[in-house]
Parts: sequence; structure tokens; C-alpha cells
Amino acid sequence: MNQRPASTVIFADKFKYMTYRYSDNSLPMVLIIGAGFAGLELIKQFNNKPFRVLLLDKNNYHTFQPLLYQIASAGLTAESIAYPVRRKIGAYPNIAFRVAEVSSVDTSGQLVHTDIGEFHYDYLIIASGASTNFYGNNSLASTTFPLKSVQDALNMRTTILQQFEKAVNASKTNGSKLLNFIIVGGGPTGVELAGALAEIKKNVVPSDYRELDPEMMEVHLIEAAPRVLGTMSEKSSRLAKKYLEQLGVKVWLNAVVNSYENDILTLSNDTKITAHHVIWTAGVKGVDIKGLEGNIRTRGNRIITDRYHRISGFENIYAIGDIASIQGDEQYPQGHPGVAQVAIQQAHNLASNFIRNAKGKSIQAFNYHDKGSMATIGRHKAVVDLPFISFGGYLAWYIWMFIHLMALVGFRNRFMVFMNWMWNYITYDRALRLILKK
Amino acid sequence: MNQRPASTVIFADKFKYMTYRYSDNSLPMVLIIGAGFAGLELIKQFNNKPFRVLLLDKNNYHTFQPLLYQIASAGLTAESIAYPVRRKIGAYPNIAFRVAEVSSVDTSGQLVHTDIGEFHYDYLIIASGASTNFYGNNSLASTTFPLKSVQDALNMRTTILQQFEKAVNASKTNGSKLLNFIIVGGGPTGVELAGALAEIKKNVVPSDYRELDPEMMEVHLIEAAPRVLGTMSEKSSRLAKKYLEQLGVKVWLNAVVNSYENDILTLSNDTKITAHHVIWTAGVKGVDIKGLEGNIRTRGNRIITDRYHRISGFENIYAIGDIASIQGDEQYPQGHPGVAQVAIQQAHNLASNFIRNAKGKSIQAFNYHDKGSMATIGRHKAVVDLPFISFGGYLAWYIWMFIHLMALVGFRNRFMVFMNWMWNYITYDRALRLILKK
Repeated sequence: MNQRPASTVIFADKFKYMTYRYSDNSLPMVLIIGAGFAGLELIKQFNNKPFRVLLLDKNNYHTFQPLLYQIASAGLTAESIAYPVRRKIGAYPNIAFRVAEVSSVDTSGQLVHTDIGEFHYDYLIIASGASTNFYGNNSLASTTFPLKSVQDALNMRTTILQQFEKAVNASKTNGSKLLNFIIVGGGPTGVELAGALAEIKKNVVPSDYRELDPEMMEVHLIEAAPRVLGTMSEKSSRLAKKYLEQLGVKVWLNAVVNSYENDILTLSNDTKITAHHVIWTAGVKGVDIKGLEGNIRTRGNRIITDRYHRISGFENIYAIGDIASIQGDEQYPQGHPGVAQVAIQQAHNLASNFIRNAKGKSIQAFNYHDKGSMATIGRHKAVVDLPFISFGGYLAWYIWMFIHLMALVGFRNRFMVFMNWMWNYITYDRALRLILKK
Repeated sequence: MNQRPASTVIFADKFKYMTYRYSDNSLPMVLIIGAGFAGLELIKQFNNKPFRVLLLDKNNYHTFQPLLYQIASAGLTAESIAYPVRRKIGAYPNIAFRVAEVSSVDTSGQLVHTDIGEFHYDYLIIASGASTNFYGNNSLASTTFPLKSVQDALNMRTTILQQFEKAVNASKTNGSKLLNFIIVGGGPTGVELAGALAEIKKNVVPSDYRELDPEMMEVHLIEAAPRVLGTMSEKSSRLAKKYLEQLGVKVWLNAVVNSYENDILTLSNDTKITAHHVIWTAGVKGVDIKGLEGNIRTRGNRIITDRYHRISGFENIYAIGDIASIQGDEQYPQGHPGVAQVAIQQAHNLASNFIRNAKGKSIQAFNYHDKGSMATIGRHKAVVDLPFISFGGYLAWYIWMFIHLMALVGFRNRFMVFMNWMWNYITYDRALRLILKK
């Protein structure tokens, strides 16, 4: 019983065959801000390479953002899509991690200032992602719910469930207002969340809330453009809208939000929708970083880089992922889409360039290989765009699930999400309906 | 695709064969406060019986309290041990549920006042359980961590993980103080939590926190009595202490806490232990209920009842579970232990009496059937007291796991806890190490 645990033994063995250590001060120091898709791919590539790497993130976990909406709609636990970063770096002796909030960058002193102290860098890689964009409307920022973090998703779940409990106690008219949900933004997050809420209406309300008429619940999806899923094919947009409407979602196209006050959302064409709960998924912007101001930002507050991920004017500072916008790729004149695949491929290319450079080889410009995109609306309802074909329905739905399962970090999370999905599929249930108050 | 989901169909069928409806005002109204072990057993027994039943709880879920310490120590998710009450009552047409915090009882008007309005009762059953007992020491109440609710457990997990992150950034001396954990109270919760923290020291710290020397972490368990697990056999107490010490826990017996100030805990014999984190599991007391004052409380603030669960002086008010103390059972002169089995058996007896009474049969006095007790300390280390034998070790550990799995509410929770335990067993890991800030 007192032998060393198996995991530690494997771990020690691994170290034996690894050449580089974080404690070796002669190695160049690469500091990475952000443990998103880009950050995790970077440390995987830098493992056992001649660099010391320090990864900073304000959370101690990586968030699998594409499935946040399933936390919000009580289909998955937070723990099954978030992954503790230290589990990842445990086996990488040249890589360290700190939970730290970056306050500013001192580019001349090569220092990053954080809430837990300052850190020196030889090379700085900014991969801190994007935050919700309210396009300057502060009133919307304070009255609507964003969905960019695990905490956002848990708050949304709690609030939605509380609405139902309130509706049970309210008069029928007031109850109806409580159960109207408006989602602003018809991108993948908005579409997927609208579908999930519609399935709650169909499958959970009739059994859990006998006191309520399910028809009291309304789900509205509001999109400023002429179609939902604007980054996908026209066919996928059309199919997604059809699926949403089959599930009872009211889809508003060409609809711009003017204001949201006293539970009334007003569109620019003066249409008014009453709802107690407005979810904002209408856009993102690159996060600001003090000390890196200058003329380096473009549309969506993204940092302009060249095709080698370098920020103009700096020798040793790079940006990748959602926060970066590469200039000079003719196929993507406005930068690449803010999706996981772009972040991962950019991280891969940048780390390769570091390693190529260390070996005296020439570095390579970034080329994005678009593997396709997809969105799910509900049971057996999804749309997939591949480079050569677009389709929807059963097959698309199974492909969506398989791809998302495989993309999750760690076997445990893959397995737990799979088991949860099987459960939800068989029972038509959303089992995780806990109101966890603070 | 548009057919009604299977679960709803089953549900509708079930209702067809059920006689009684919550909407039938001619049925007597039974109001139950608390959806703990007692509350859930009551609604199970009252299902399809000639009563309207309204269950109130301040949370929308039932908490499986015996496993809270595993949420705190990152071994289980909150969702796997908490169970949404509405899933349970969905199939019971004569039973309703409300999330409500009881503010007072009006015994002459037969009303319960809550934060969501007042409810009439013909019969009132109080099963609202116990809260942490700081024995009047307000300073301890504000500086130590309790472990009675899901939220307590999640807060504790977050705080413990934050301590580790702080320790990585601290000097060795300060870090050590951050990683000293004191648990006050050597009952099952204290013993099980101490064991779990000791296993984190052994299995998680070496791989996750290379920067830290695991020996910086200390776990202290403080018990006022001459032995831990005072309600179990002397053999089990002795074994539990041995197991704890094998895992590196420092066990202090006959040790009474005087004060905890500026990170220093002082015992009554003037011993001082430095620690940043003190967990208080040293006792519980029945929760207070306004309008039910009078001379009805005994030791531990429990409500005195007769062997038919009636509160003296009231015709139609009952108390069961942790909050109740039955007088007149010679075998248990100080009332029954505050464990799940007592609550469940009392609920069963009380509901039977209601039904017997409705049929004109005589009611039965409560008799507790002690099925035994158990506690787990760590991997392959547990103690079990059965009525005829006490033992520890491997077999006890497997029995502990099996009994706790079977006692969980709902197949889904049993399955998820089982999968998590298998994972933790095979990997020696505590996978759920997310710091979820508020």
C-alpha cells in the first residue's frame, strides 16, 4: 500500500528522457499569455524543446468554449469541458504555469506585470483571446448575459432555472414574461443555445413543471444579418433556420437591437419583444493589453500581425488565436475566423518557427487549412460545411458530436461528455438542473 | 422526429393509473419542510396516497450530505451527488414542490410563511435538518469553513486550490503556512476529509506542483474526545486513527479549540498550530424555526418529539430527521444519531402512520433498526461497524463504496459517481481541480 502511486512512477520515467528543464536559466524564456486552444497547443509543441516556457492564465483551467452553451442549458457539467492546466504541464519539465491576471506589458524592460508579480520574457506570445463585444452600448452590457466563460455559463444556468421557479409562483401573464428568452446573435453560439432552450421547452418543462403551460415559454433568436450562421454556406444557414423554427424558435433576421429596458427589447424597426432574460452572443473583440497600445489594432480590436505572427514594431512579441488578425493572406483579407482550428494551427506554426529558428532553419508563413465548420441545433439536427459539400440532419449531428468529443482535452473529459450525451439522448433529459446560489 | 419524447409518454401513462391529484382540494394538505433524506422518503411514501403534499426546500435539489467532502476534495462533481427535486416529483401527481425559504410558522392559522408567499397546511412535517454548530463562538463561525452544503463544499474546493497556487508564489516559510490544513471535529466528515486531503498531498501535489515540496503540506485533525469516530466501536476508532497516521495526518485527541486568530489555532492546553485554513466539522444543531419556540428544544437544539414524531403541544405538527430528538426510546435516551438511516426510517414510519390512520388502523411507535455505521479514510482504508462485527481494510472500503453508491438518489448519479470513483482509483488522480471564482 505504501508504494508510490502508478501515475508518479510514469511521470518520473518520462522526465528521465527529457533534456530541458524550466530551472535552466541559460534557455531563452518564452512567456505565453492565455491557456486557450492556442496556449495549450503551444506548450504541447514546446515540450522538451530548448526553451523555458511560462504559461499564464487568469483561470487554472482551459475552457472548451464551443460547448459552454451546454453548461448553460444543463446538459454538461463545468468539470467535463474545463481542464486543469496543471494536469497538462505536469509531464512537461521545461514548462511552468501560473494563475495570473496580466495588468500590463513593459516592452522595453521585457516584463509582464501581473497581480502576482512581474515576469521576465525573451519572447512574448499573446494568446489571450476575445471577450464579448457590446459595441459600446454600456446599458446592454449591464442588462444582458454574456456567454464567454465557465462562470458566465454557470450563472446563466442558475438564472434560467430560477426563472422557471419564479414562473411557477407568478400569475400566468407575468410568468410568460419570465419564460421569454431572447438570444441576440445568430452565430454558432446563439443558434446552438436557442436550439438547446427549445429542447428544454419540449422535453423538460412538461414533466418538471406541470404547473406551467410549456407554450408560456418563448425563445427568440435575433440576427442583424440576412441569415443565421453567416460564416457558413447559404445552404447551412437555410437549414439551420428551418431546424430552429421546427423546434419553435422565433428567428428574426435583419434585426438590429436598439435598446433593452424594463424587460422590453426594441429593434431598430421599432418591433418590441418582452423578455426577462436577454443573452448576448452578438460579437467578440480582442482584449486590451496595457503597454501594447500604439497603432496595432484592427476590426474587432484584433492585434495586427504578419504571416509569421509578429506584431509590427516588435522583434520578440507575437499574437495568435482570436486576438490576432493576420494581414497579407489574400484568401482571408479581414483576418482568419475566430475559431479553435485557426488558433491551434497558428500555435503549431509559431512553435515550429521557434524550433526551426533555433536549428538555423528558415521560418514559414502561416497557411490556414480550413477543415470545415459546423453547428448543432438539436437532436438529429445539425449542419456541416466541408470544403467540398454541405449537408444537414442525422449524419451532420453525429459528425458534430464525434468531432467535438475528439477535440476535448483529455480522455476523462471526452469520456464524461460522451456518457452525459448518451444519457441525455436516451432520456430526453437535461439532468444537471441545480440552482447553485452564491 | 416530431413525435412526443419517450419520457413524456411514460410519464403520461403513469398518471393514468394514479388516483390522487394535487389539485384536489378535498384531500388533506401535508406540508413538508426540507428535501433531505427524510423529505425524499416522505414523498416516495405519500405518492398516490389520499393526501395533497407540498414539499418546500431552500434549494431546488436534494443533497447527499455523506459525500460532500468528496466535492470539497475535488473527487466528485456537485452534480453527481445533488439531485433536482423536480425530477423526483415529476411522476407523483399528488405532490408539488416549491423552492422556498421558510421564515416562520403560524400554528394557530395553520400557515407557513416563506420568501415566496404563505402556504396553508392541515399537517406540517418539519424535516429541515441541522446546521453547523460553533457552540456560540462567533469568531470561529466567521474564520473557519463549514461543510454542510454543496455551496460550502464548492467554496472549500476553490479555497484549497487557491492556497496551492498562492503557495507556489510564496516563499517557502509562508508557503508552508498556506498549506497547513486543520480540521476540527473527528466525526465521519472530519475523518473522511482529513484522509482525502492527505491523499491529495501524496498523489496530486508531486505531479501538479513540482515547485512545492509535498512535505510543506500538513493535515491536522483535532478531536475533543479521547477518540475519533466517537459514535463507532473502539476498534474502529483505533483503526481509523492508525490509517490517518499512515497517511501522514497529525491526529490530536482530547484537544479543545480555544481560539483561531491571525492564522494561529490555540488549543485549551495552549498548544499553537499555524494554519491558513481551518475546517469546522465539530458539531451540528437543529435549525431554528420562528413561531415554534416554546419549550420544545433539547440538546443540540433538536426538537423534542414522542415516538410517533409529534411535537408536544401540537396536534398536527411533526418533526423527523436531524432536527428531531425522540424521547422515550430506552435504547436511545439522548435521541437517535443524526444519520441518513434514522431520517429515512422515521420518514417511513411517519408516512405509514398517516396512511394507517386514514384507513382507520392504529399508528405505530418508531423503532430504529441500526444497520451499522462506517467511515472511509483513504484508498483501501475504511472501517465498518455491523451489529455483530467490526472490521477495517480492503473489504470495509469496498463495502463503504458499494453502500454509498446504492444510497445515492437516481441511477444517473449512481453511475456518474461510480465512473468518477473508477477513474480516481485507476489514475490516483483528483481530476476536478477547477478554481471557479464568483
